[in-house]
Amino acid sequence: MTSSTNSFDVVVVGGGVIGLSIAWRVGQEGLRVALVDPDPGGGVSSIAAGMLGPTTTRSAYAEEELQNFNAISAAAYPAFSIELEEVSGMKVGYEHSGGILVAVDAKAGEGPELSFPAADGHRGDGVRFIESVYKYQASLGLPVQMISSEQCRLLEPCISPQATMAVLYEDEGHVDSRRLCQALVRACRAVEVNIHLHRVVHLITKGREAKGVLLDDGRQLDAASIVLAAGAWSHLLNGLPEMVVQPLRPLKGQVVRVRSRMDAVYEVPSRTIRAHVNGRHVYVVPQLGGQAVVGATLEDEGYDTSVTVEAVHRLLHDASLVVPSIGGMEVVNLGAGLRPVAADNVPMIGASFVEGLFLATGHGRNGVLLAPATAEAVCKLITKGVVDESIRPFSPKRFYRETDGS
Amino acid sequence: MTSSTNSFDVVVVGGGVIGLSIAWRVGQEGLRVALVDPDPGGGVSSIAAGMLGPTTTRSAYAEEELQNFNAISAAAYPAFSIELEEVSGMKVGYEHSGGILVAVDAKAGEGPELSFPAADGHRGDGVRFIESVYKYQASLGLPVQMISSEQCRLLEPCISPQATMAVLYEDEGHVDSRRLCQALVRACRAVEVNIHLHRVVHLITKGREAKGVLLDDGRQLDAASIVLAAGAWSHLLNGLPEMVVQPLRPLKGQVVRVRSRMDAVYEVPSRTIRAHVNGRHVYVVPQLGGQAVVGATLEDEGYDTSVTVEAVHRLLHDASLVVPSIGGMEVVNLGAGLRPVAADNVPMIGASFVEGLFLATGHGRNGVLLAPATAEAVCKLITKGVVDESIRPFSPKRFYRETDGS
Repeated sequence: MTSSTNSFDVVVVGGGVIGLSIAWRVGQEGLRVALVDPDPGGGVSSIAAGMLGPTTTRSAYAEEELQNFNAISAAAYPAFSIELEEVSGMKVGYEHSGGILVAVDAKAGEGPELSFPAADGHRGDGVRFIESVYKYQASLGLPVQMISSEQCRLLEPCISPQATMAVLYEDEGHVDSRRLCQALVRACRAVEVNIHLHRVVHLITKGREAKGVLLDDGRQLDAASIVLAAGAWSHLLNGLPEMVVQPLRPLKGQVVRVRSRMDAVYEVPSRTIRAHVNGRHVYVVPQLGGQAVVGATLEDEGYDTSVTVEAVHRLLHDASLVVPSIGGMEVVNLGAGLRPVAADNVPMIGASFVEGLFLATGHGRNGVLLAPATAEAVCKLITKGVVDESIRPFSPKRFYRETDGS
Repeated sequence: MTSSTNSFDVVVVGGGVIGLSIAWRVGQEGLRVALVDPDPGGGVSSIAAGMLGPTTTRSAYAEEELQNFNAISAAAYPAFSIELEEVSGMKVGYEHSGGILVAVDAKAGEGPELSFPAADGHRGDGVRFIESVYKYQASLGLPVQMISSEQCRLLEPCISPQATMAVLYEDEGHVDSRRLCQALVRACRAVEVNIHLHRVVHLITKGREAKGVLLDDGRQLDAASIVLAAGAWSHLLNGLPEMVVQPLRPLKGQVVRVRSRMDAVYEVPSRTIRAHVNGRHVYVVPQLGGQAVVGATLEDEGYDTSVTVEAVHRLLHDASLVVPSIGGMEVVNLGAGLRPVAADNVPMIGASFVEGLFLATGHGRNGVLLAPATAEAVCKLITKGVVDESIRPFSPKRFYRETDGS
């Protein structure tokens, strides 16, 4: 390899949905882009359910500043997915079909039936939970609508009659995250992004300026701009000066991907179904080809990505109570991934204290949703030097303002 | 390929544990052997749990004639596994550590907790079930022993205190079936068995004499002796004259392979644990490397090998009630396979009405257990022309004696 092939305008570290989207957008602007990931599109992004719910994020009671960014990115999805499908030649399963939140309250079994811990102390109180979520969201002027369980089953006949009370979110969508990631890899190649199937082992700096990255095969990639989009591993990159990347917490999520075995109408929901089952959360998100993703656990266990018996058991148990037809479906695969979460639960997007080093991580549960808006804003920042209003609250510098004086 | 390479003394159709064991034994006798299977060792044999329970087969109330053959094959296991480990250079995890049968009776949950159908109408009556099994087996003079739930947990601390009453089977073992299959493939290669990674599409006969088989790549393998060991597919081989192979029923079994994530002593049982949970059967069989197999469903659904949500859910639910520590374990993989079952539930081993065509199939749940004795007897039959007493009850000709006059 000649030294010229190792010099780029932009190097993106990390090939999840965020890194791939940024690489694609920057590549479209004609810049020479490299992306480094041993398995582009194969990480937590690809096991995500692909819920696109600007309204129904679980962070219903906090992080209001995210709602605006969520809405911007959700609004960008139709055009984003159409463009991506055209470029990649493959379907990504984007649907703006709405979402439903329901509660199933099951009396605990007596004797040695298993019980799972409730996620948030709402056990056996689903109706009140649903009501409180609805009231809060309605008070914010969000497009939510309370519906009866009969109306709910009219919309989604696969939902159990034991589901009581529901909230309808018309302004919600979903996308097939596995396909989305595959399409983004193709889109990157189409704009000649140089994809390196390696790991970045070191950031190369000169003073407070980023110069390039070192790969695990010993090669060095130089670039004027480096985008760190390595999810929950972002702060662990060797060579990062202190106080540049606030540590991220890896929040483990486990999912089960299922597939209908027959052509039964109504077996798979057409909307995202989010449910509150005995105080636990579970969702069923329709995907292409009669598939659906059942998720997800929320575990704070470090960098462990093993699929556990209890998680699979709990997810299938709770999902079967909400959508009984799931019992007859085939298990396509089990997955576990780590959501990157910053200390204040909002993303880190923008310039860092190191010149030329940009961050795009900390998207938590919303990486798939926020990919279009994040990519747009980071591309604008790199190519035009302009900080979009939408990402101003998410500056990576926010944690250290006082000590740093910036 | 020259025509000479396509001529063998023996062709074995099917590379499950039965076919592989036969090919190995016959190969050891110096005969030129070919084995045909697209994925040797990769079928139902490799997902089997590897229980070696001459006493505790579920066929406790029938097929007494099998008990003798079970006992012979179980007795052959120590020498069989030692020889196999020496030849293959790999561990197969054979342990003669005993087995335990327990009952867990759980009161049905009220409200919308899920309930699974009972397998045999014994729901909520585990104690009586255990007692009746014990009495029957003791009356046959089998080495069984009733123990209290305290004694049970002294032997296997991982068993739930909610397990009531148990039967101890000291004369029971287990083997790691995945490893066993891999070792058998190596053992076959060691005696120069010619393994063809193909499917047999046709049996070639001349009059009532078998001459060879046709593969899906168009090649023909000729042999004086052909052993049909294709499990539940055996009777479907094109070219078989009518009334030669009694149709086999494919009884689907689904299993979950799990692995301990820590070095906790007592987390994985050291014996095979068979349990009766609310009338349903579940077992946990220890395997090498901190693994265990949780099984198994028994489904009569034709040639379908999909892994279903309900089966995985039910297995994990019931196993967690018996061995609670399973909840924290990792899921290694999910599997489904088809047990070959003849109309009268006993194997078909021996010569058929077609000269030169031998059968070794219909082993149902006991293929792994019966492999050593089956291989020994079939080898004797082919190389010496002698029908071993042990397989006399399993003659494939038994179904058609009257019409055939033989």
